[in-house]
Amino acid sequence: MKNLITNFESFLKSELIYSDPTNLYQPVKYILESGGKRLRPLITMNICDILSNDSIKALPASASLEIFHNFTLAHDDIMDNSLMRRGRETLHSKWNINTGILSGDVMLIISYEFLKKYDDLIYIELSKQLIETSRLLCEGQQYDIDFSSQDIVAEDKYFKMIQNKTAELIACSYKFGGIVSNTKDINKQILYEIGLNLGIAFQLEDDLLDCFGDEKKFGKRIGGDIIEKKKTLLYINTIQNLSKNQRIEFEKTFYSDELNEKSKINLIKNFYQDSGSVDYLKQKVKEYSDKASYNISQLDLDTDKKNQILNFSRNLLDRQI
Amino acid sequence: MKNLITNFESFLKSELIYSDPTNLYQPVKYILESGGKRLRPLITMNICDILSNDSIKALPASASLEIFHNFTLAHDDIMDNSLMRRGRETLHSKWNINTGILSGDVMLIISYEFLKKYDDLIYIELSKQLIETSRLLCEGQQYDIDFSSQDIVAEDKYFKMIQNKTAELIACSYKFGGIVSNTKDINKQILYEIGLNLGIAFQLEDDLLDCFGDEKKFGKRIGGDIIEKKKTLLYINTIQNLSKNQRIEFEKTFYSDELNEKSKINLIKNFYQDSGSVDYLKQKVKEYSDKASYNISQLDLDTDKKNQILNFSRNLLDRQI
Repeated sequence: MKNLITNFESFLKSELIYSDPTNLYQPVKYILESGGKRLRPLITMNICDILSNDSIKALPASASLEIFHNFTLAHDDIMDNSLMRRGRETLHSKWNINTGILSGDVMLIISYEFLKKYDDLIYIELSKQLIETSRLLCEGQQYDIDFSSQDIVAEDKYFKMIQNKTAELIACSYKFGGIVSNTKDINKQILYEIGLNLGIAFQLEDDLLDCFGDEKKFGKRIGGDIIEKKKTLLYINTIQNLSKNQRIEFEKTFYSDELNEKSKINLIKNFYQDSGSVDYLKQKVKEYSDKASYNISQLDLDTDKKNQILNFSRNLLDRQI
Repeated sequence: MKNLITNFESFLKSELIYSDPTNLYQPVKYILESGGKRLRPLITMNICDILSNDSIKALPASASLEIFHNFTLAHDDIMDNSLMRRGRETLHSKWNINTGILSGDVMLIISYEFLKKYDDLIYIELSKQLIETSRLLCEGQQYDIDFSSQDIVAEDKYFKMIQNKTAELIACSYKFGGIVSNTKDINKQILYEIGLNLGIAFQLEDDLLDCFGDEKKFGKRIGGDIIEKKKTLLYINTIQNLSKNQRIEFEKTFYSDELNEKSKINLIKNFYQDSGSVDYLKQKVKEYSDKASYNISQLDLDTDKKNQILNFSRNLLDRQI
């Protein structure tokens, strides 16, 4: 994987040729140079490598996805008023909101522009898919914003939100690997399903790690979601499982601004655990991960390639943990 | 033209089928229903009509341009802190900044999505052109933002700014008419040039009307650019033409916050007129409009069609006035 990442980083750097006006493109370079896991490029490059023994042709599609992902981060950080990301100031915090908006816009546009590097037929498939995925991501972000002002969030709506906001772009990354390696149409569709199921598993895993992970491995402060009063599936499921009185107690704690952060995190974690919601989430992660494995078995490929995709995908989920 | 606009409005309404989440798509419908001159759709539909006797096939491309244009308005209005547009509250003023950002984003995406309605070859040409144009518009907006904090703006930079921010989308509208009507490649390129030159003429005309227009016809308050201290070509050229002492006097007036608005507008208008800048602008409008007429003469079309394009384009410029 290391080799692929190195290729990706040098490709991204060499192809980001835009420089004037500086105040537009410098922030673009800043956010794209600030690293991150490069999860989406890794998926597209690996899938393409497995399917065609050539990861190089996946580079523009991978860069497109990473640039697109960073567009969503730039705009989401404004909306969430997040000042830090990956240990650095966010774009609008380092510059200002207007720069965050406009440099975000141009990243969305550049993500489409990178797809022009392909021949017509590949360009058509990639760009149509990315347009579809882009719109779904905006819808996911809106659902997420809507939740913050709602008392009760239904479980199916939560799944729809994380599917749109997170899983769709993972699905797109798997499918992009299939498109650029020119695999059969049926495989492209299955790759999309694999990514969709894994993307949901990733997000649920992330919700769990945010509460119960190892701070050093996780890279973020544990309990962040609790402090931000985020209605994750742990919250939604706990609410469902508690008796009326327990629920009053839980909500008093969850919405309290007086408790010190450490005690609050511990109290809420106990609720999550005792209500059975942690086990429920683990079961859901397994369920979606199993669905993805089943999808992989359905690919119209020889067993060796299927195993490679299975191993790569398991590694990804483990890397997340 | 009225008939084309009616077709356009009903097409736009019937094809904007997105509804959930409401908080994302209601603002999109609000801004798109708030009218405006529909200048860009009018161009694409008329050119397509002249070239192929069929304006219907230009509808999706026209809608794409109008939706794209409204994306730029939604985001520009946040950046400029504009609260009213076309007599109604702007999107972020009626809702909030986050809604302005996200509904703007989804409009940009939907503008690309509308192009999917065409067959492959047309889709490729339209989408690649719109991507290119989109990026140039972001650059134009950044130049405009940069100018507001600069003491001196060079004339060539001003022309580059209005070319990117305004003329490129007019150029794209002309070219879109050529692409959907399947005209020769050479004509598509010339249509683009026509739009570029006319777009610059439109913007200069707009700068003139903002100071010297008829308030009722212009639809906006006269002198708005002066009150907002905008460095239009009138400002830039006046600065160049004045002696050192006159310039000090001019700048004192231009940047004054103490003068009442009416006197300030009148004083600045006198400077613009006496320095010869108004005549200079009129000459530039003529120059760019003549360039467009020359471009039209170069089209590989029969004389009748060239005349129709010439008449239509002259009407457009007159409508602006």
